[in-house]
Amino acid sequence: MAKTIGIFDSGLGGLTAAAEFEKLFNGKKYIYFGDTARVPYGTKSADTICRYACQDTKFLIDKGASLIIVACGTVSANAIDELKKRFDVPVIGVVEPAAEKAVEIAAAGNGRITVLGTSATVKSGAYERAINKIDPKIEVRSVACPMFVPLVENGYTEGEAAALFAREYLENSVSFGADAVILGCTHYPHLSGVIGEILQRSVLINSGKEAVVAAKKYLPAHMVSDGNGEFYVSDAPEAFSRLARVFMGREVADGVKCIDIESY
Amino acid sequence: MAKTIGIFDSGLGGLTAAAEFEKLFNGKKYIYFGDTARVPYGTKSADTICRYACQDTKFLIDKGASLIIVACGTVSANAIDELKKRFDVPVIGVVEPAAEKAVEIAAAGNGRITVLGTSATVKSGAYERAINKIDPKIEVRSVACPMFVPLVENGYTEGEAAALFAREYLENSVSFGADAVILGCTHYPHLSGVIGEILQRSVLINSGKEAVVAAKKYLPAHMVSDGNGEFYVSDAPEAFSRLARVFMGREVADGVKCIDIESY
Repeated sequence: MAKTIGIFDSGLGGLTAAAEFEKLFNGKKYIYFGDTARVPYGTKSADTICRYACQDTKFLIDKGASLIIVACGTVSANAIDELKKRFDVPVIGVVEPAAEKAVEIAAAGNGRITVLGTSATVKSGAYERAINKIDPKIEVRSVACPMFVPLVENGYTEGEAAALFAREYLENSVSFGADAVILGCTHYPHLSGVIGEILQRSVLINSGKEAVVAAKKYLPAHMVSDGNGEFYVSDAPEAFSRLARVFMGREVADGVKCIDIESY
Repeated sequence: MAKTIGIFDSGLGGLTAAAEFEKLFNGKKYIYFGDTARVPYGTKSADTICRYACQDTKFLIDKGASLIIVACGTVSANAIDELKKRFDVPVIGVVEPAAEKAVEIAAAGNGRITVLGTSATVKSGAYERAINKIDPKIEVRSVACPMFVPLVENGYTEGEAAALFAREYLENSVSFGADAVILGCTHYPHLSGVIGEILQRSVLINSGKEAVVAAKKYLPAHMVSDGNGEFYVSDAPEAFSRLARVFMGREVADGVKCIDIESY
């Protein structure tokens, strides 16, 4: 039987993964959930992130998803083991695929990786563990960038404000000279312009894209149902729709539906 | 029997009301709840805000509160009628008290008021209605400032970033020449410095303070139990504690307890 893929994030960030899905799984069906009623996740505790992630996953499975892409760095760093334990379907997060890609680049360079993430992601140490499990010699520096998600969620992906916070968070990382910079939160590729301007010598790694690449290795596209993206949020579908249009570069087909995530 | 007062907000903003409570009800007990698991409220829909506000209020009543101060502009603008209808205890929001104070000032001046609020507050039109109910001749302009709450919640209450967004949101309001500017979200008094610098000719109105003044008219201090503030949040008590110390200028006595608000 053809499979359906579920993708979730705290809000708009996962759309960077959805956009990659549409490229790699051209014409295949996926179900997207953005937990817009409870965004941001990155400032919350590991327990709360885990509880929310379980509800998000259960919703997508109830909707028919037979593989889950956790397109959220914070959930991938804090709750992936719990999701894998609790649910019977395969669950693919962003941490391991992004770590693999970064190590591949860093091993051929100076052996240095910078990880940008939310406070909860940096606190978890998940990227360091994943990187050093592949190659213990790699030197990793992590930087929490808590204002990046509100900037993206409010549409400030370029301009003075985005550049100001990028400088504040990243200027000290320039001299570290990382070969690769993991955009460890799926919101951050929306800020690639201002991030790339400061960390010019590093390759930026889109963690949501790497998760989709990993999903395709696990489940070839021909095994996935034909169709379009279906979009669900837990609040304010119009606002999501408006920004999704900016981020995806097109209308979201069939609109965005609102569901009560707390009942899952 | 002596009464206990409950104060709630989506997060740290209500501390501006708590600080006023401590001045006006010196040595009296209050219970504070900050919904840090679901902050911010100001980007959410009216339905979701209403559902969250009912849970917040129920928690405080279960804890013994016999009067509720809604120290959140977004809830006051979107859910106050529902709270008044659903609960037996008096519920005092920030909109009407702040509107009264602003009208008092504007009526003696140019008759102009600027309202700063979250997207949900501005969308509700609640301040305009409250102001024009008192005096239909007052001219009101409202400005949504969606980045102010993330700035405050992340500790950016002064400096370049705070000034940048203040300019972006407020520069067009300078020529309006309002007599009074309602800081319609209780987070905003933390940004009084940068706001006041731009709107120098206007009186800034702290809506949380006005709500506490209204509460004291309703319930004289001698009828309130002696005691201290008790602090509850729905997530990450350490982070709240750390910023509360900055905002209240002292340690939060007896620490901050974490509760599961979704069970209320």
